[in-house]
Amino acid sequence: MKLPQVKKYLLANKLDAIILFNKDPNFRYFVKGDFEHGIMFLTKKNNYLFLSQLYAPKFEGFRVVQWKDFKKDFKAFVRKNRIRKIGIDNQELLVRQKSFLRKHFKTKDVSKFLQNLRESKTKEEVARFRKACRISDDIFKNIINNFKFKTEADIVKFIKVKALESGTEIAFEPIVANAKNAVVAHHDSGSSLKKGFLILDFGIKYKGYLSDMTRTIYLGKPNKQERGMYEKVLSIQKKCIEKARIGMKAETLYNYALKLMGKDAKYFVHGLGHGLGVEIHENPSILRKSRDKLIKGSVFTIEPGYYNPRTGIGIRIEDDVYLRAKKEVLTKSTKKLICLRLK
Amino acid sequence: MKLPQVKKYLLANKLDAIILFNKDPNFRYFVKGDFEHGIMFLTKKNNYLFLSQLYAPKFEGFRVVQWKDFKKDFKAFVRKNRIRKIGIDNQELLVRQKSFLRKHFKTKDVSKFLQNLRESKTKEEVARFRKACRISDDIFKNIINNFKFKTEADIVKFIKVKALESGTEIAFEPIVANAKNAVVAHHDSGSSLKKGFLILDFGIKYKGYLSDMTRTIYLGKPNKQERGMYEKVLSIQKKCIEKARIGMKAETLYNYALKLMGKDAKYFVHGLGHGLGVEIHENPSILRKSRDKLIKGSVFTIEPGYYNPRTGIGIRIEDDVYLRAKKEVLTKSTKKLICLRLK
Repeated sequence: MKLPQVKKYLLANKLDAIILFNKDPNFRYFVKGDFEHGIMFLTKKNNYLFLSQLYAPKFEGFRVVQWKDFKKDFKAFVRKNRIRKIGIDNQELLVRQKSFLRKHFKTKDVSKFLQNLRESKTKEEVARFRKACRISDDIFKNIINNFKFKTEADIVKFIKVKALESGTEIAFEPIVANAKNAVVAHHDSGSSLKKGFLILDFGIKYKGYLSDMTRTIYLGKPNKQERGMYEKVLSIQKKCIEKARIGMKAETLYNYALKLMGKDAKYFVHGLGHGLGVEIHENPSILRKSRDKLIKGSVFTIEPGYYNPRTGIGIRIEDDVYLRAKKEVLTKSTKKLICLRLK
Repeated sequence: MKLPQVKKYLLANKLDAIILFNKDPNFRYFVKGDFEHGIMFLTKKNNYLFLSQLYAPKFEGFRVVQWKDFKKDFKAFVRKNRIRKIGIDNQELLVRQKSFLRKHFKTKDVSKFLQNLRESKTKEEVARFRKACRISDDIFKNIINNFKFKTEADIVKFIKVKALESGTEIAFEPIVANAKNAVVAHHDSGSSLKKGFLILDFGIKYKGYLSDMTRTIYLGKPNKQERGMYEKVLSIQKKCIEKARIGMKAETLYNYALKLMGKDAKYFVHGLGHGLGVEIHENPSILRKSRDKLIKGSVFTIEPGYYNPRTGIGIRIEDDVYLRAKKEVLTKSTKKLICLRLK
């Protein structure tokens, strides 16, 4: 997305190129799409995808170079473009990839640079997030309006089909956790539906960009304690969104949530949120001991949760927030507790 | 799948454990399913999944150990189980994972052992392949019987929805390539359908096991040259399946296909086949310079192709073969050239 910044960085750091392999999320970031083949060269002049003849994609800002004999053609390409000192991504590189690169180049880890580059989002990226979140909202509405499901797995399948019908796909395997399963934050959905809370945590991938939303509804009629706990988590979630500020330490926001949890803090077993982008977990990490700050233009989740194995109450409420002077909550589904009759 | 062999290997090689990370395909192989969290310890006594509290899965043969404080609990776990010398998977390990492991253990690369272990399939695995292939066959039939598609993308979506409806999912992003797109072996499906060959390359993941089938049909009426070329590729595909033998060098089979291609060999731009399993490309690799042999109990594809950018003819026919004394072709869809009218 930000190829001009890469060129500046290469110049400032006296690097001839940044080389990325196909499974690296930065690879998808730069081609702006779901392509996972070949090797990417970002150089001061041009950007290249070095690919087998089996592929012939077209990506804005990239030239495709097809090889016939990998070893020979790789060497020739590198020589022609005078690539000697390169930036590599030590966060995502495989051991065997690194040893290959070291045979050919002098290397410098540029993973931090790439992470930071991706953290503040461009207008084009935010537009993709908005679309992904709008589709998530639609699917949530659809789930509520068509609630004839018998099992958690039925709902997972429904989410996947609706995503495909909208011309997108799911961002990650949906988490659908009902009744006492809801106390396992990342439950593997399988059981029959019964009375109790039902956590629905899913997201959409739209042109490579991921949404991530959680709503907790109730099947049957909640008792006073259950309703009270829901209202508490919701109030904390809203307050944390309210509190988030440009320049704030991520840990400060996490500690704020923890303080609001009070005596229930021990049932809040995960982080408060995480950055979103072409990966489902990017910078910032909003959790204990995080060294990140909340920066302008970043998109992250706010998702307090409560998981009590003793009472069997599990609740999580999650929105995606675009941080700038005026904050924007990208996911817009209702957070009022929805109670549905069990069929 | 083959935990007893792992124990034997650990004993013979004086290793305390094999440690695998969540994204390693071997991880999915041993839990026999789609789970990608935590760290796996295969030891001489027990097998463990070392996980955050967010997860509480159940896998045959594994004990789940949940950590609260990763660093502290990891050290304690390792000390308690006396794990000092470990096997690692250098094929799949990230640079940062390896440097983490090296801080705690003496390491030995066991990637070859794991690859070989996975190559010959158990009865349970073959049953999963059969199911995956049966669903692929059904979807192919469904495509032919419901051919009202306008674009390549329509067919891709149809395949994905049908996979979900069957309770499974796609094994990889389907390749649907029509007319002159068919000459790009791994075309990115997007165009409107028009007269010409239509390559349909897709697979199903059933309980972790992948099928991979290609059929080429024709939209409109093929001319004599097109029909002739199809019959040639089909005849080569059948002959190669026929020729495959236990103990044969993979390269021998590839060279046989190349010889049958004759003057068209230059239009056969990829390998003849690849092993299947929990990954879409496993051992053996049936291509030029391969050092693999075809072993008993392995499952692999046979998929000659012809891609002529000058004439715009692209054809590929692919089946999945289970190799034993009596060979079994797992994909059973018709290979007679199907010609459909364009709507």
